[in-house]
Amino acid sequence: MAKGIVVYYSRSGNTKKMAEIIAESMGNFGLKTDCKSVDQIKPTDLFGYDAIVVGSPTYYGGMAAPLKQMFDDLVGSHGKLDGKVGAAFSSAANIGGGNETTIMGIIEAMLICGLVVCGDPQGDHYGPVSIGEPDDRVRQQCQRRGQRITELTKKIC
Amino acid sequence: MAKGIVVYYSRSGNTKKMAEIIAESMGNFGLKTDCKSVDQIKPTDLFGYDAIVVGSPTYYGGMAAPLKQMFDDLVGSHGKLDGKVGAAFSSAANIGGGNETTIMGIIEAMLICGLVVCGDPQGDHYGPVSIGEPDDRVRQQCQRRGQRITELTKKIC
Amino acid sequence: MAKGIVVYYSRSGNTKKMAEIIAESMGNFGLKTDCKSVDQIKPTDLFGYDAIVVGSPTYYGGMAAPLKQMFDDLVGSHGKLDGKVGAAFSSAANIGGGNETTIMGIIEAMLICGLVVCGDPQGDHYGPVSIGEPDDRVRQQCQRRGQRITELTKKIC
Amino acid sequence: MAKGIVVYYSRSGNTKKMAEIIAESMGNFGLKTDCKSVDQIKPTDLFGYDAIVVGSPTYYGGMAAPLKQMFDDLVGSHGKLDGKVGAAFSSAANIGGGNETTIMGIIEAMLICGLVVCGDPQGDHYGPVSIGEPDDRVRQQCQRRGQRITELTKKIC
Repeated sequence: MAKGIVVYYSRSGNTKKMAEIIAESMGNFGLKTDCKSVDQIKPTDLFGYDAIVVGSPTYYGGMAAPLKQMFDDLVGSHGKLDGKVGAAFSSAANIGGGNETTIMGIIEAMLICGLVVCGDPQGDHYGPVSIGEPDDRVRQQCQRRGQRITELTKKIC
Repeated sequence: MAKGIVVYYSRSGNTKKMAEIIAESMGNFGLKTDCKSVDQIKPTDLFGYDAIVVGSPTYYGGMAAPLKQMFDDLVGSHGKLDGKVGAAFSSAANIGGGNETTIMGIIEAMLICGLVVCGDPQGDHYGPVSIGEPDDRVRQQCQRRGQRITELTKKIC
Repeated sequence: MAKGIVVYYSRSGNTKKMAEIIAESMGNFGLKTDCKSVDQIKPTDLFGYDAIVVGSPTYYGGMAAPLKQMFDDLVGSHGKLDGKVGAAFSSAANIGGGNETTIMGIIEAMLICGLVVCGDPQGDHYGPVSIGEPDDRVRQQCQRRGQRITELTKKIC
Repeated sequence: MAKGIVVYYSRSGNTKKMAEIIAESMGNFGLKTDCKSVDQIKPTDLFGYDAIVVGSPTYYGGMAAPLKQMFDDLVGSHGKLDGKVGAAFSSAANIGGGNETTIMGIIEAMLICGLVVCGDPQGDHYGPVSIGEPDDRVRQQCQRRGQRITELTKKIC
């Protein structure tokens, strides 16, 4: 049976909240999903999942270093992720502060691993974005993304 | 029955050659695929396809303006592309001349339309790249990409 | 004497408003600056300026096609822009809707022309972003950017 | 008197070789420049330099995690880098393997710190790229970039 994981790095708690909403939504739509901080997993744990969602605060326009280290440690084995479903999200302090480039940086790492990534024709196209603490708009975006990831994963895996 | 299209803009002929190899490969793997220059289609024609592949020369780090105009003209109706499969490729004059940012620019436009995009854990991860005229390496990358797009389209559509 | 230009494409008027604020700020800080819609200039007109600021609505994660055409038409002569100062800004309908990738796409085109681009350690780091109509926050970001562009231009040119 | 630094992360030695060529070129053109592996510096050491050049292997489309950690550790103090000159370079295993997105990721981090970044109208526009071990083409690109960084730094600082 297909399984999902949401991996996040969070200091303020905002990215963690987004992670929990997405993971809960994925579960509600029928994809059993774990939700873990990056320091609770080994990179190779990702091989056991069909959908991999990665969330980071917006630090200098890219994912936080511990998440980048998780990807870097996959060198030589990332082919095992080929064909799985991937998605990304980010929390940021400011509009225009690097949230989109952070999400696209995660998506680029995922494409290099051979993951399949979906956009969204509405709302936060590349992936959910929160400016500051997640509000109702962000909650709705995260739930919607969880649903879309789940539907795609059911088709592919 | 699922159908694909490869849309390209080409002046030197290099992008066109890549387009033809990808389209032929998609056909060989079982996805009937049209191959057209951007001036041969209307943007709304894209609604009739299940897999959409877009190729551009590398001009100033982004897709050629006529291809960007094709996307811009979808405003208000791009939701009809939601869930289709997308992929991108580029030819360039030089290494490091903007080919990856051109491909990622096309992928960003596709994600905004709700397309599903796949990477590749080997070779040209984001999409096939040719430096100058397509050689054997590029031909193999284009054929491989055609196969991967086809396999994903069969799963999703 | 150094001169600047702000070139924009605008349909809703939001990008135009941002352009006017930036151009006015550049003038106030001592850099005589023209403000023109992209259809009012020839691409080669850019050679006559020391600072070039380009603004676009956020269309599919990249600059509007007429602005991309302006860059594409510089092929063969863009070396004449080498060493000038560049900057970018964007208006968008939504947070996370592609405004940062639009700005970075313009910056990538500028780097390919050899322009010198500055960020900002505060606020809208890559360039001013407006979500919807420019408000006080956006006005302040645009004024600040106009000042920074002017100061850099005076040092370099 | 103005000073420069080239900071790199390297395992194969390719990025280190590029770093040394760039640093030597900067010195030859008159900017005294240190060349250090990221593990030999503290992030706050960067405050003492006028030109900061960062080089990374191409890992998953972005800079290596230890370099990202260097930037992440600047949170709260990156304003001290405002107005300095920045540049980036990368070595990669393959064409189309993520080298441009790696360089642009470094440039995005630099823009967020307020650095001033220059492109190049010829060759490797965003920054020098080596596919595999640096060859004569790469050596020439690195020397040229070192010259350009130095000339810009002398104007600004």
